[in-house]
Amino acid sequence: MTGRLTALDAARRIADGSLTSEALVRACLERIRAREPVVQAWQHLDMDAALMMARQVDRFGSGPLKGIPVGVKDIIDTADMPTGYGSSLYETFRPPRDAACVALARLAGALILGKTVTTEFAYFQPGKTRNPHDPDRTPGGSSSGSAAAVASGMVPLAFGTQTAGSIIRPASFCGCVGYKPTFGLIDRSGVHPFADSLDTVGVFATTVGDAAFFASVIAGRPNLRIKDEVFRPRIGLTRPYAWEAAEPATARALDEAAARLGTVGLEVCEVALPERWRGLLEAQKTIMAFEAARSHAPEMLTASDRLSMKLRELLEAGVLIAPEDYDAARALVAEARAGFSDVLDGFDVLLTPSAPGEAPEGLGATGDPVFNRMWTALGVPCISVPGLTGPTGMPIGVQVVGRWGDDRRALAASAAIGQSLS
Amino acid sequence: MTGRLTALDAARRIADGSLTSEALVRACLERIRAREPVVQAWQHLDMDAALMMARQVDRFGSGPLKGIPVGVKDIIDTADMPTGYGSSLYETFRPPRDAACVALARLAGALILGKTVTTEFAYFQPGKTRNPHDPDRTPGGSSSGSAAAVASGMVPLAFGTQTAGSIIRPASFCGCVGYKPTFGLIDRSGVHPFADSLDTVGVFATTVGDAAFFASVIAGRPNLRIKDEVFRPRIGLTRPYAWEAAEPATARALDEAAARLGTVGLEVCEVALPERWRGLLEAQKTIMAFEAARSHAPEMLTASDRLSMKLRELLEAGVLIAPEDYDAARALVAEARAGFSDVLDGFDVLLTPSAPGEAPEGLGATGDPVFNRMWTALGVPCISVPGLTGPTGMPIGVQVVGRWGDDRRALAASAAIGQSLS
Repeated sequence: MTGRLTALDAARRIADGSLTSEALVRACLERIRAREPVVQAWQHLDMDAALMMARQVDRFGSGPLKGIPVGVKDIIDTADMPTGYGSSLYETFRPPRDAACVALARLAGALILGKTVTTEFAYFQPGKTRNPHDPDRTPGGSSSGSAAAVASGMVPLAFGTQTAGSIIRPASFCGCVGYKPTFGLIDRSGVHPFADSLDTVGVFATTVGDAAFFASVIAGRPNLRIKDEVFRPRIGLTRPYAWEAAEPATARALDEAAARLGTVGLEVCEVALPERWRGLLEAQKTIMAFEAARSHAPEMLTASDRLSMKLRELLEAGVLIAPEDYDAARALVAEARAGFSDVLDGFDVLLTPSAPGEAPEGLGATGDPVFNRMWTALGVPCISVPGLTGPTGMPIGVQVVGRWGDDRRALAASAAIGQSLS
Repeated sequence: MTGRLTALDAARRIADGSLTSEALVRACLERIRAREPVVQAWQHLDMDAALMMARQVDRFGSGPLKGIPVGVKDIIDTADMPTGYGSSLYETFRPPRDAACVALARLAGALILGKTVTTEFAYFQPGKTRNPHDPDRTPGGSSSGSAAAVASGMVPLAFGTQTAGSIIRPASFCGCVGYKPTFGLIDRSGVHPFADSLDTVGVFATTVGDAAFFASVIAGRPNLRIKDEVFRPRIGLTRPYAWEAAEPATARALDEAAARLGTVGLEVCEVALPERWRGLLEAQKTIMAFEAARSHAPEMLTASDRLSMKLRELLEAGVLIAPEDYDAARALVAEARAGFSDVLDGFDVLLTPSAPGEAPEGLGATGDPVFNRMWTALGVPCISVPGLTGPTGMPIGVQVVGRWGDDRRALAASAAIGQSLS
């Protein structure tokens, strides 16, 4: 059962010599052999190469992530593996260097197991991945493969990225932890750009402790690690803008989370978001379309016919957005960023839905990031914490939102919340 | 003399049929043949290919930049030309796609003439370029080739990037216009990253009108273009922090600029920068080193021995910066960004030095960005306006600084200031 160890346990056991990276990778590969035919989480995975690397790491590796296998969303560059960005345009592309986050993982001793499926350029056109809990449902996107691989026990840790809801939503749908850090906490070099002021690198794990451990190493921020001491967060329960998008499953999950937190004596109070920031949802869409239209100019110049309809529509809409409207959207975001701490006054974190409901049926779409857009625009840390289920038994996550730059507290609160829910 | 046309004049003449792109490119190539043996501005230039492209553009091209040749700093990706980032590590690299700014230029009809020399990864290790006014002096960096090529009449427009002072300083040393827009105004996709929260794409031109025209097209912001109407900016003269770094040449140039502006009746008043933001200079250095250490993890992982000593020292220092110190630097920048508009109260722009003096002698270093760091950290628009000379006859620019997002006014003021100085 080494494949079901947490990353923290595995790292401890590799460090004390009671586990090898090779054994851990073998367990992962075994799990992948069993589940991959259905789940389809991997875009590139060379099992022999992975085992060879594991033996190398066992002999020569060092660092806090020594020997721990990591999945990398295929929107992120890897020098030793193809990197396809989910688009036929890059089918044969091999980047000249790793992305910074991949290199930082390797420098810390991690073993890059393979590339996980991304939607096309991390937008809405789905890849092949299925939800590990029901192959007829979407895993969510755009970090579809990373979420599905971690949730199905194929790999303990994986990188994802979020521009709207691409980490939190699939984590909720697949039933693992997704952590979108404060904007910029993990370096983005070598991540294919979508929208410059929104794109954020984050991680997937099976526990909040693992997510915090992984991110702390990559970002070089030891204080993100979850301490053993008891932390009793003050929690603000928030029904976000566009609450009408919430299905009964999500409304019930939020109530159930609050109830369970109450039973362990954690203070949960309702917090209303200020009316004046309702525009954040539209602002995020405006910023994303405007910036994507510019960052994808190369594809529009040379190969627009090889983009999905969904993406082409966004880019064409983005070109038509008046700069004044974009500037107004950025100004609203800046104002809300400055004022957001006050909304949290008296609380450590907000508790709010990760997604509108259970993973939708069908594989033609990846679900709605409506409950993620404003937080990504604000750049604040978000963690999707699993533990609840919906009416059909599918996982439903709750989203923990912290203050800009206060990832430590957001993670610590998420760990406490996760314990109460599981 | 077509090679000395402004880009605006050339665009008008190409549009009305009185000039072809081929003739314009021929004039540029003639100038390059004459000056390149000494100036060494180009990293890659295929003259036959350029002429072939020009004929193509004449037949099939369209757009506001139709047929206008553009130089591209070799830190910026081009799909049809090698892209070396100023490092032996990328000597043979050919990116799979253009950077966004290059594609946007092509979509507007521009002709990418070639790649201009950058320092190593746009940091301090110089390339081969010499100052066009004195081959024994540095052109400045890191956008060495773009500044030198435009200043010596080889190409009317060029792209550069700035993380500390890589546009404004070489523009001042070489005697052309350098424009670093508000952070994010021109999309950065496909620009090799150095420091994520500082890297900014900008342009070089021979007039402020051309720089505004070029940037307006690339950013899709028509209102950046300089209007014919008279604009009489209210100007705050600022002796920046670390004024002791200013050589007499720069101190005199600033006084002379103020005097000339006074004689044409423009109001110039001294403005003191608040003491509490003196730390911005160090904050920029902290942010740059911390972020560069992360973004260059791939090079540190695989090829640190092929980095220059200068860069390696920065990266090693960056690794040692405590996250708390980086966060404090970012917090100071955020506070200053929010308050900077007040410093400009009653003024349209600030007038401040572009560089400590004339281009330093020698080719082993690219000069000091001390008068650029804080403005880059603030993310505000900066324009280096030429017209003055130092004691040995070398050009000296003055720097015009505007409010965040108010590039239109900063450019209009720079145009008015440029007229008074020339």
